[in-house]
Amino acid sequence: MDYLFSDKISALQPSAIREILKAASEPGVVSLAAGNPAAESFPRAAIAAITAEILAQNPVAALQYGISEGYEPLRLEVAGLLARRYGVGRDFDRVLITSGAQQGIDLVTKVLCNEGDVVLCENPSFIGALNTFRSYNVRLRGVDLESDGLDLAQLEAALRTEKKARFLYLIANFHNPTGLCTSLAKRREIYALARRYGVLILEDNPYGDLRFAGEDLPSLKSLDTDGLVIYVGSFSKIIAPGLRVGYVCLPEPVAQKVTVAKQAADVHTSALAQMICELFLRRTDLDEHFRGLRDIYRRKCGLMLDAMSALFPPAVTWTRPEGGLFVWSTLAPGADMLGFCRSAAAARVAVVPGNAFLVRPDDACRSLRLNFSTPTDEQIIRGLEILAELLA
Amino acid sequence: MDYLFSDKISALQPSAIREILKAASEPGVVSLAAGNPAAESFPRAAIAAITAEILAQNPVAALQYGISEGYEPLRLEVAGLLARRYGVGRDFDRVLITSGAQQGIDLVTKVLCNEGDVVLCENPSFIGALNTFRSYNVRLRGVDLESDGLDLAQLEAALRTEKKARFLYLIANFHNPTGLCTSLAKRREIYALARRYGVLILEDNPYGDLRFAGEDLPSLKSLDTDGLVIYVGSFSKIIAPGLRVGYVCLPEPVAQKVTVAKQAADVHTSALAQMICELFLRRTDLDEHFRGLRDIYRRKCGLMLDAMSALFPPAVTWTRPEGGLFVWSTLAPGADMLGFCRSAAAARVAVVPGNAFLVRPDDACRSLRLNFSTPTDEQIIRGLEILAELLA
Repeated sequence: MDYLFSDKISALQPSAIREILKAASEPGVVSLAAGNPAAESFPRAAIAAITAEILAQNPVAALQYGISEGYEPLRLEVAGLLARRYGVGRDFDRVLITSGAQQGIDLVTKVLCNEGDVVLCENPSFIGALNTFRSYNVRLRGVDLESDGLDLAQLEAALRTEKKARFLYLIANFHNPTGLCTSLAKRREIYALARRYGVLILEDNPYGDLRFAGEDLPSLKSLDTDGLVIYVGSFSKIIAPGLRVGYVCLPEPVAQKVTVAKQAADVHTSALAQMICELFLRRTDLDEHFRGLRDIYRRKCGLMLDAMSALFPPAVTWTRPEGGLFVWSTLAPGADMLGFCRSAAAARVAVVPGNAFLVRPDDACRSLRLNFSTPTDEQIIRGLEILAELLA
Repeated sequence: MDYLFSDKISALQPSAIREILKAASEPGVVSLAAGNPAAESFPRAAIAAITAEILAQNPVAALQYGISEGYEPLRLEVAGLLARRYGVGRDFDRVLITSGAQQGIDLVTKVLCNEGDVVLCENPSFIGALNTFRSYNVRLRGVDLESDGLDLAQLEAALRTEKKARFLYLIANFHNPTGLCTSLAKRREIYALARRYGVLILEDNPYGDLRFAGEDLPSLKSLDTDGLVIYVGSFSKIIAPGLRVGYVCLPEPVAQKVTVAKQAADVHTSALAQMICELFLRRTDLDEHFRGLRDIYRRKCGLMLDAMSALFPPAVTWTRPEGGLFVWSTLAPGADMLGFCRSAAAARVAVVPGNAFLVRPDDACRSLRLNFSTPTDEQIIRGLEILAELLA
């Protein structure tokens, strides 16, 4: 039997990260390649207690079909949280629950894009989102990322010339893979440009609560007086990713279409998982909870940065993130980054070659992504020691 | 702000059932319109005990990211169950876990169909699947359903003329909305026809374990020597739908593409929900569990059929299902079915007008779907009494 696949899926390959992570899961390999939150950050006891309570007191709601928009008490809790803490959400906005932020990105793309339409994005960007866009056969137009956010001249050129641009995808806080933040000035200019050209913004903010240095910046969504911004959030980094619960906050007309698409995609998100998130949010002192998470990541990031300073040759550079999970390191001019990643794998240290995050993965790239949230302290040190030996 | 939506989503409206269910959820309305399993069928105590055990003994696996193919022990458990109990799955097949059977249908459509391709289906058919197909802008070609399955002459004509037909979607056991089964002879003929024309079959079997009368029939997948059949199953009707766990059993090359699409759609299905299903399957005497479910549905279906026989005028007919959740009732020639459903709603009884399940919902239809799994015994009797008064 010959199987014929759709154009949109035929070209899509399993992500390079995925293959590296498979290799990285072999015993004895030190993985700096993952993007998992630290397992010690999971509020295990609270989740166990909450889950027992739900299944004892409200089992039918947790086990029966629910509505596609999401569990109403969770929607209200999220809407309240977004408004109070982050100034996100206006009268024209709605909150919908999704099966992780990934599904929010997926459904928004399905609802907004025909095949051949264009999505603008930071270059590099989160490979999971790029592959979702590719899976709808849209064309990606990358805009280079500077240390304080998008190159605005490039962005304006793209907005001016790409008549089929449907939205701009970005991660303004602790960007994946670079760990960089978009400055407040640039957030304002990006919003103004998008408004001028009538292009929506898809703001992905999985790491916003994981700031362990510096000051919080307003999200683009909080600046959104015009209904331009679709905001995607997640409980994966602040509760637990295995639950697969995320949300979108977006203008009502788009929310209606996303609801229809969600119904066709998976009917609704796991009711039990939604109820766990709802009760966790309601029962937890989030300031204290976030302080605990930030302490974990501040320490691990510091450990990684200190070891890099001590071990890596001066020609190698890297970002100094104020939050999130990743450091982006760039090898010396002329270096063979892919060859280095392969040598690292042979020496049993997994890192993600930076070109995996590019709009065109064949473009030249001397950078690689290092993760400090998943490995143990010992693995961070040992992994960096091996990398330093290869660099020397 | 004017929002532009994709062609595939623009035309798709919230399903008629969904709107009816919203009305049906008003207090005081007797709903025979749902498709929910009976809440008394949920193994609440077992799920509570199992969940507590998982969160105590293996919390990180339940809370951390997992792989897109699904939780390995659940994949093995499902593959073993399918092989042992149903003769489903050959060397060339793989089992993947999905977020409900709905996601299996969604991902298979995304992987196989370009916009403008054709999906063949029973007419009427499950509206949730039809809307998923529509959400990819495929064209639906309906084949009339007879009391023992598809009209084979129509099916062959469709296979012969529809050059862009990508697969045939069907529910051979206790079909939604009619409650009918495809005979073994027709299963064999449908398989042979699909093979002759090189068209895949998407076999959706959510209700197969809910047979409360008659003899089990082999699934089309169990006849699949050629890698033609994609089989979609679900735990929604045998454990609990709120968990949102289903699975597909399908040839390896298609499984690879579905895995890539799954990764882009929601990364993976809730790990906690997958682990609950796995441990439930491993710990439970399924023969006994299914006996309990069948007892519930046999009794409720019998109650509905007996009341219809006692109350409905002779010109009204209905199917006599041997399993599943639905009875399909057809009004007398010349009757105004939509008007009847509206009158029923005004009298505070919700039923689903049959045209909602048609490939072309504007086609003439005198039938409606009645559900016996969700209402209480009293609601079944009271609802049918009100319908009988309107019919008289």
